[in-house]
Amino acid sequence: MLVNRRTVRIEWAHCDIAAIVFYPRYFEMFDTSTHYLFEKAGWKKRELIRAFDIVGYPMVDTRAKFLVPSTAGDDVVIETNVTEFRNSSFDVEHKVFKPGPDGEVLAIEGFETRVWVAKHPDDPNRIKSRPIPEEVIRRLSATC
Amino acid sequence: MLVNRRTVRIEWAHCDIAAIVFYPRYFEMFDTSTHYLFEKAGWKKRELIRAFDIVGYPMVDTRAKFLVPSTAGDDVVIETNVTEFRNSSFDVEHKVFKPGPDGEVLAIEGFETRVWVAKHPDDPNRIKSRPIPEEVIRRLSATC
Amino acid sequence: MLVNRRTVRIEWAHCDIAAIVFYPRYFEMFDTSTHYLFEKAGWKKRELIRAFDIVGYPMVDTRAKFLVPSTAGDDVVIETNVTEFRNSSFDVEHKVFKPGPDGEVLAIEGFETRVWVAKHPDDPNRIKSRPIPEEVIRRLSATC
Amino acid sequence: MLVNRRTVRIEWAHCDIAAIVFYPRYFEMFDTSTHYLFEKAGWKKRELIRAFDIVGYPMVDTRAKFLVPSTAGDDVVIETNVTEFRNSSFDVEHKVFKPGPDGEVLAIEGFETRVWVAKHPDDPNRIKSRPIPEEVIRRLSATC
Repeated sequence: MLVNRRTVRIEWAHCDIAAIVFYPRYFEMFDTSTHYLFEKAGWKKRELIRAFDIVGYPMVDTRAKFLVPSTAGDDVVIETNVTEFRNSSFDVEHKVFKPGPDGEVLAIEGFETRVWVAKHPDDPNRIKSRPIPEEVIRRLSATC
Repeated sequence: MLVNRRTVRIEWAHCDIAAIVFYPRYFEMFDTSTHYLFEKAGWKKRELIRAFDIVGYPMVDTRAKFLVPSTAGDDVVIETNVTEFRNSSFDVEHKVFKPGPDGEVLAIEGFETRVWVAKHPDDPNRIKSRPIPEEVIRRLSATC
Repeated sequence: MLVNRRTVRIEWAHCDIAAIVFYPRYFEMFDTSTHYLFEKAGWKKRELIRAFDIVGYPMVDTRAKFLVPSTAGDDVVIETNVTEFRNSSFDVEHKVFKPGPDGEVLAIEGFETRVWVAKHPDDPNRIKSRPIPEEVIRRLSATC
Repeated sequence: MLVNRRTVRIEWAHCDIAAIVFYPRYFEMFDTSTHYLFEKAGWKKRELIRAFDIVGYPMVDTRAKFLVPSTAGDDVVIETNVTEFRNSSFDVEHKVFKPGPDGEVLAIEGFETRVWVAKHPDDPNRIKSRPIPEEVIRRLSATC
């Protein structure tokens, strides 16, 4: 599968009174990382929406396991890839790595299930899942 | 002018490492307070958009002066009213009060200038300022 | 178990370009809801920290399943309770309900595992899990 | 004065239903930009706090004028520098530039007044302004 790696600086803005990242901020970072994975495959989010006439790929199930905390000034690496495509839904995995004395350590694992949706043909105020296009699956399945 | 007062609990989510509110959060609260002022006048934000066929009232200039800090668990009161209407723009003032040993103290002053905008008649991807409707001015100028 | 129910207004600030809640915001709401559950049991977050000399109850695992979307102006109800206490960790469940034409519908399910931690006795820069105090378990297990 | 320029990608996470940046997010970006200015001068935020035994440089007055909107996928440049140092307070200016058909255009102007504060010598729960150290002024006044 296509993997995107990006370095994220933990900012003062991300941290709470306990001086660690306020965990909902990680979900923001993961959402952004999924967008960058698609961008690496060829489409910025808004280009993807236009190219395939979709509303987006809203989240239906997400989970994160927090192993090692981070604080303002830390640099972490977020590695993101799809783990499975089904007809109209797909799973994404995020791994957050932190530099440690003995090399990178896994700090967080994130999981997402998203659905490929377009406007409902009968009612523009509703949405309807649609098959994920072959081209999307092919590009995001590339090995690099 | 019509005044809206609402109590806002300062949450853990709002605070930074220094254990005070991360100040951009106050601008979120002020934006929300402006929406509640319009709701008190009769229109939730999305109803207002439909009722007057506008895009919204985007911010063009905002300022805040921070006098007294707050932290998680504090309850503050935000008082909001329009201070001036012009043809297609208007000014909003927010005052944040905190209970103190000798009564309420003024903790923050916020100022906004917003513009009343609709889709551009010639290009739906652009916006254009429009005169603020009489009814909006009348209701937000009510004394109560 | 002690259950906390609170109504949350979905604000403009919570929503994204797709006009639905940007899902990381739900994790903010859930974190706040857990604090309110403890407050209902007798302790605001900062009181709890002082009362038991802890650093807090950081998140180690959280998940949410999104069933029904919401948008600005909607009022949802978040129902929160502990589902299990272990020696030094506990599970929390959140249910988000939306009013529907045939009564409340379940819109989101949230799950959390948190750990009860204090400063490490040997190194104030580190944290260490501690047994959850009896009084905390007792009050949060109350039936009401 | 020392100037920091950084490119910021506008993310889906930053935008609201109107498909433009939710303006409180700009204040987050400005706060982060001020930290990067200090980092360019030699101190990450937490290093600065330790080096000068301060609590920080909390905001007392901030303002932003929004001239040109941005949306998800846009890249903007934020240019940040101190404009004036006084005894214990200082002013920061942020300029947000967007690429346009005829070169960069000024999209936002931001202004900040911050105070240099340490723990109060008589009461660790209070803060007290302190003179800004010479070395801080010298490094942030460098021409580059």
